[in-house]
Amino acid sequence: MMLSATYVGDRTLTVEEREPKVPGSGEVRIAVAYVGICGTDLHVFHGDMDQRVGTPATIGHEMSGTIVEVGPGVEGWAVGDAVTVMPLAWDGTCPACRAGHQYLCQNLDFIGIDSPGALQQSWTVPASTLVRLPDRLSLRDAALVEPVAVAVHDVRRSELAAGDKAVVIGAGPIGVLIATVAAALGANVVVAEIDANRRAAAESMGLRTLDPSAVDQVAWVEDWTGGAGADVVFEVSGAAAAVLGATSLVKVRGTLVVVAIHSQPRPMDLHRLFWRELRVLGARVYERCDFERAIELVAQGAIPADRMITQVVPLVEVASAFETLEAGRAMKILVAVTQ
Amino acid sequence: MMLSATYVGDRTLTVEEREPKVPGSGEVRIAVAYVGICGTDLHVFHGDMDQRVGTPATIGHEMSGTIVEVGPGVEGWAVGDAVTVMPLAWDGTCPACRAGHQYLCQNLDFIGIDSPGALQQSWTVPASTLVRLPDRLSLRDAALVEPVAVAVHDVRRSELAAGDKAVVIGAGPIGVLIATVAAALGANVVVAEIDANRRAAAESMGLRTLDPSAVDQVAWVEDWTGGAGADVVFEVSGAAAAVLGATSLVKVRGTLVVVAIHSQPRPMDLHRLFWRELRVLGARVYERCDFERAIELVAQGAIPADRMITQVVPLVEVASAFETLEAGRAMKILVAVTQ
Repeated sequence: MMLSATYVGDRTLTVEEREPKVPGSGEVRIAVAYVGICGTDLHVFHGDMDQRVGTPATIGHEMSGTIVEVGPGVEGWAVGDAVTVMPLAWDGTCPACRAGHQYLCQNLDFIGIDSPGALQQSWTVPASTLVRLPDRLSLRDAALVEPVAVAVHDVRRSELAAGDKAVVIGAGPIGVLIATVAAALGANVVVAEIDANRRAAAESMGLRTLDPSAVDQVAWVEDWTGGAGADVVFEVSGAAAAVLGATSLVKVRGTLVVVAIHSQPRPMDLHRLFWRELRVLGARVYERCDFERAIELVAQGAIPADRMITQVVPLVEVASAFETLEAGRAMKILVAVTQ
Repeated sequence: MMLSATYVGDRTLTVEEREPKVPGSGEVRIAVAYVGICGTDLHVFHGDMDQRVGTPATIGHEMSGTIVEVGPGVEGWAVGDAVTVMPLAWDGTCPACRAGHQYLCQNLDFIGIDSPGALQQSWTVPASTLVRLPDRLSLRDAALVEPVAVAVHDVRRSELAAGDKAVVIGAGPIGVLIATVAAALGANVVVAEIDANRRAAAESMGLRTLDPSAVDQVAWVEDWTGGAGADVVFEVSGAAAAVLGATSLVKVRGTLVVVAIHSQPRPMDLHRLFWRELRVLGARVYERCDFERAIELVAQGAIPADRMITQVVPLVEVASAFETLEAGRAMKILVAVTQ
């Protein structure tokens, strides 16, 4: 038997004993070590995604662990291998898949949302989703690989280059990771954040910040860039005001990447978009190369893991992790699953 | 002496006698043959741009003509040469210019808006703005080169390829030209337009149309593209509803080009942008290569000039041209200036 956290609806998570799932053909079973809780998990907890996830549901998709059982037909993996999971399963037949964008499959199964996730001591997944972890990377830090891969993907999509100037709007976990990945690439980065605690957290990671409620951010960016505007702006706040202001921070022919989830239509300054021939890019999830780059960055210490991980709680206290996150009192909370 | 049309404010154009301007160093004087009236000219006429153009002002920037006088220091041009003008003058020193985007100069002088335009019998311009017209191209059709260059630029910016599927929203002059240029490239094109007269005009030019007020355009495009969505959508209508709906017509990783001028912020579906990793591009004016391609297209008959040009009026009737356009009773009206 093993323990599994279960979202049962109505802001309620329970921890129950379950039978581990025996790996079928092409599958492996993982002893899950750590699971990070992200904003999407919080949306599930809030009930915003009940229709999509269904109840009861085992969620969680930022994880690390060790293979404990290998199903028939699996090659290249063995019991004891340290792994993380790229939690995407595509159909391979939709127009997006046929065009080579499998990670944006029109019928994508996001494992941990659309199918059972990692908040259980024993997790059975397709071997095709496994990503190998190097020996030098702790399982604790490896639980950051998935969100770092998001940031790596966002930065790659932006085509940001060394020496460029980037503004990251929003200093939540993904904003801070994007800023860190951009800086690791050799870009000059400033993080715009109205919340003083989040600014302080970002600054503690060595990031430059500005408070758009206190300074004229357009004038600040103009001055910083010699009148040009930023090469790239990342919108990671999810706020309507941020979207409306973002276009005024971008240089002629520059790029705005929309990373945050905006569930409602947002007013955008299309005159500025037109006038400066801006480029606005949606960016979501990742490809395998993003996971591999994320592993390198975490393993080489380029990600401030000790500052990112504000708390580690045991699986039986998973509900408290959601409450702490909800209260805005944490950057990243990990759940230690197999303890 | 020569005749010049002058916008004096308050929806009023007068035609007056003036002294021609003697070309200074690096300038030429052109006997203007034809001038097309465009949407921006109409905005000026409405008084929407009084602050920018000032009054009195000579406007007009879609033109053809013949050189009648060559100023000192001009090489490569002679009296009698048939020309059009690319009406942009940049400062060469702003960040956009230094980055190689002179046509988007942050202090751009758009000749015909920011400085005197072509609605005069004798127009003196920098020789650097001249674009040579081939013998086989009539001066009448050559007045279409500037708006065709806009369309060529928009299509080039979209990276549309032969065999791709494109939706053009809005069947005004620029929408119809974008559709025509896209079709000339080998793309499959549909024009979405709610106005029956404009649809009929587009159809008379051999373009396929749909009426988004009568059919479910999302379902139509899905069906047309085998469930993928369009490779490229061009927003040329200027309507808020078109912007909100446009993102749902684009395939995964596809492109929406915003060509229309939206003077107010518009609600956009950023969730769709994110979900499908769309790309939204602003597009404006042109570069010299766009003018050269436009001349080729007009000269080879790829642009339905006879259908585009719905009326030619003499200079003394220029005010009536604006009134006819305003009433929506014309596609493109040319003013025959030197007659």
